[in-house]
Amino acid sequence: MQINKNIKILIVGLGLMGGSYAEALTDKGFEVGAICRRQETLDFALEKGFVKHGRCEVDPEYIGQFDLLIFALYPHTFIEWIRDNQQYIKPRALLTDVTGVKCSIVYTIQDMLRSDLEFIGAHPMAGRELSGIEYATKEIFSGANYIVTPTAKNTARAIEFCRQLGTEMGFKTVCELSPPEHDEMIGFLSQLAHCIAVSLMLCKDSRRLVDYTGDSFRDLTRIAKINDVMWSELFLLNKDQLLAQMDLFMEKFTQLRNGIADEDTESIRAMMRLSKQHREYFDIREDR
Amino acid sequence: MQINKNIKILIVGLGLMGGSYAEALTDKGFEVGAICRRQETLDFALEKGFVKHGRCEVDPEYIGQFDLLIFALYPHTFIEWIRDNQQYIKPRALLTDVTGVKCSIVYTIQDMLRSDLEFIGAHPMAGRELSGIEYATKEIFSGANYIVTPTAKNTARAIEFCRQLGTEMGFKTVCELSPPEHDEMIGFLSQLAHCIAVSLMLCKDSRRLVDYTGDSFRDLTRIAKINDVMWSELFLLNKDQLLAQMDLFMEKFTQLRNGIADEDTESIRAMMRLSKQHREYFDIREDR
Repeated sequence: MQINKNIKILIVGLGLMGGSYAEALTDKGFEVGAICRRQETLDFALEKGFVKHGRCEVDPEYIGQFDLLIFALYPHTFIEWIRDNQQYIKPRALLTDVTGVKCSIVYTIQDMLRSDLEFIGAHPMAGRELSGIEYATKEIFSGANYIVTPTAKNTARAIEFCRQLGTEMGFKTVCELSPPEHDEMIGFLSQLAHCIAVSLMLCKDSRRLVDYTGDSFRDLTRIAKINDVMWSELFLLNKDQLLAQMDLFMEKFTQLRNGIADEDTESIRAMMRLSKQHREYFDIREDR
Repeated sequence: MQINKNIKILIVGLGLMGGSYAEALTDKGFEVGAICRRQETLDFALEKGFVKHGRCEVDPEYIGQFDLLIFALYPHTFIEWIRDNQQYIKPRALLTDVTGVKCSIVYTIQDMLRSDLEFIGAHPMAGRELSGIEYATKEIFSGANYIVTPTAKNTARAIEFCRQLGTEMGFKTVCELSPPEHDEMIGFLSQLAHCIAVSLMLCKDSRRLVDYTGDSFRDLTRIAKINDVMWSELFLLNKDQLLAQMDLFMEKFTQLRNGIADEDTESIRAMMRLSKQHREYFDIREDR
């Protein structure tokens, strides 16, 4: 299967991410259809020209037309959808997704999937602190990273196809990680960061802090405006990795705390210098 | 003492903050002089037109000309400077500062100061992740918050003068806090945030993370590029408050960790919703 503009793409789920995919792919000249729950959402996507057609119910004949299916659902809904509806999918179609955790999804889907279908996991590292198709825009992909997470069950051509898809949609970089590597990385870089922001915002009623809040604190807590239903699900699906990352952070934080409590200036400064050095790797990349 | 353009202002210390003050005040038409350690720094300030004149050593006659002295030194250097040189200051001059902690500075300076001089503390909540006069710019004050920290020893006219100074320099908001209120607030909003960023960057050698790092993590850790000498001093000068804020954060973080470990979805979601609600107060202000 080559990436060519004649393939028909079905997006399942038209939230922020599904809507943004739909816009990006329609823009690139693909024929894009969608399945979502609410007529209102579909109407919005049709009006905006994100999709050519769509359905608000499972229509076997409709589903059967598509060569590529992209699932932009909450994790458990994705698994249920495959269990209930995979019999309608066109033979030899390719499936991919946008789910933010991988081990608990990729292996499950691959194990339950019809043998003539192929599922390749992907994680677009893009988003907004807002949910719903009304905030969807392909702009969120520019500058962002698209991670393909193949397993031993994936074919080389599916991996290549999925990488091309990321490039087509306008992601800045496309890379590959195994599902366990992905989950460790995302547990640290994204989930732990969200846990920290949430915990910070739990500390105090912030009304009286607003007048004094500088940019650093705002930056640190922007991601605290979290979709609780989606993120609690993602956290629990990556529970072991996330707990490991939280414990690692707590160990370093406690080390710094004890340095301050003991007034051990030299050890505090050494930690700060190491931290600065680590952070500078990011700047080198930013400057490119 | 009214704020009028005839007063002569001395900036003691020409780092990022002293340099930015100098530029802002010269720009407003004040006669600004400076004392700093290195000739190179003074030359830079003179070339840029940040100051009209300056000295690289303690010159009693020079110091004695100024009506307003602004101290932009590291905390312990500030205290030593007052101890050693306050006899040269013009009678009835006003002194202020930029120090990021207040209880350990304001009361100490006020207690040791000549009775004909008045010191009023201030904290410009502005800065950059860079040090030195070469990065100084009055632009850092626009949109920022200027906090005046009066005590019972301060006169109403000095408080009013200091507030006007913040407005003149282009700060967006000027407010007042007592030194203990200031230190609690800054311990939470600024110092704790820096401790978190530093601890995060200590967790892993970030070289292999660069390719996967999204905006949230970059935002969260930008302030990890910390000046270790200055910040270790500020942390220890606010030790009790900072430890209290770190412990409060750790309590909330542990609560979230345990919710995840126990797979207590309802309690995780409740924490996320409360966090989101607290964070939204900031947005209301941002929208103004």
